Amino acid sequence: MANNRDISLPVVKRLPRYYSNLEELMREGVLRISSSELAGRMKITASQIRQDLNHFGGFGQQGYGYNVSDLYHEIGRILGVDQRLKVILVGVGNIGKAIATQVNFSKRGCELIGLFDIDKSVVGQVVAGKRVCDTSDLSDFCIINKPEIAILCIPKSQAYSVAEKLIDSGVTSFWNFSHFDLNVHFDGIIVENVHLGDSLMTLKYRTNNKI
Amino acid sequence: MANNRDISLPVVKRLPRYYSNLEELMREGVLRISSSELAGRMKITASQIRQDLNHFGGFGQQGYGYNVSDLYHEIGRILGVDQRLKVILVGVGNIGKAIATQVNFSKRGCELIGLFDIDKSVVGQVVAGKRVCDTSDLSDFCIINKPEIAILCIPKSQAYSVAEKLIDSGVTSFWNFSHFDLNVHFDGIIVENVHLGDSLMTLKYRTNNKI
Repeated sequence: MANNRDISLPVVKRLPRYYSNLEELMREGVLRISSSELAGRMKITASQIRQDLNHFGGFGQQGYGYNVSDLYHEIGRILGVDQRLKVILVGVGNIGKAIATQVNFSKRGCELIGLFDIDKSVVGQVVAGKRVCDTSDLSDFCIINKPEIAILCIPKSQAYSVAEKLIDSGVTSFWNFSHFDLNVHFDGIIVENVHLGDSLMTLKYRTNNKI
Repeated sequence: MANNRDISLPVVKRLPRYYSNLEELMREGVLRISSSELAGRMKITASQIRQDLNHFGGFGQQGYGYNVSDLYHEIGRILGVDQRLKVILVGVGNIGKAIATQVNFSKRGCELIGLFDIDKSVVGQVVAGKRVCDTSDLSDFCIINKPEIAILCIPKSQAYSVAEKLIDSGVTSFWNFSHFDLNVHFDGIIVENVHLGDSLMTLKYRTNNKI
């Protein structure tokens, strides 16, 4: 069994894809799968799969394949789906509302405990079963409730001051939908950027160049 | 100057990030930047930057750095920001509405020409300045208007039939927000998946393991 610390970030980034593919296979009633079958399904190479999954020793056997359920649960354990982290969301506009209502937080071991906005017409609305609070209450809320992760769905212009407030209140992990590069301005924080426009540009390039 | 076909997909996926960082630098009035300064800003290694940008020869010089504006425009050319592609969006729920209203399509050389939904209460609404059409009109619309890219913001259960209809009508590129693995079911299409839940799980792992 691997020590989580030994797993490199590129491998970590692929784990959720393995996890959801294995979940799908379990739903289809598949008990075992070879690295080449899994590779065909995920459109990556079998050698990449063997290399990645070697980190979780004991699940693959020559000529036998992987035990789907065992591998699924081991990757779930590595991903920490059973450890609950508290999450808040700042900026309940179109994207924020979509994230709050569409993302299955509990399935991923997260709990959305607070929603914040500066717009007085949004504060007080109920979104995803939660009343939206005023951003002016953010620091107090964080000091009391200690969320581990903040989701930023705010415009670039607000990102610095909101992030600073959150960091001062003990939040160190950010799921960043704002177009503001937090890592340039703050050290010692963990950031996953979702740059939707970048993904569209990559698709456009691939469409133009048929790759 | 590189032939676009020579550039590997991992490099392509980094290009939009270079592009937005260079845009930011131009806005800050920076004329030249060294690979190590750019590396510090983007939190990647200087050698990775030199390796990536070597594909676009002529912009980096030893002890002199990159000409920000030239590199910005060259990467824009490679990304095809001046070539306009037609885009449609299927599924105008929370995520679909957020994408239609928040993503700056024209800045990325795309034009959103149609919105579709099967929900009769959504059809006829005006979103991002466009009237939402009925999904039953999708095939006719595609055959007449020839969109290059379809954005799928529909539930997994609808994804197969909608994608099949689109492919039959000539669409080959998909920006896929549904949790359905199109590549498993269709060959010869180009897909950029946006798996928001995967990104959250990666952040959660990094938060738990402080990496």
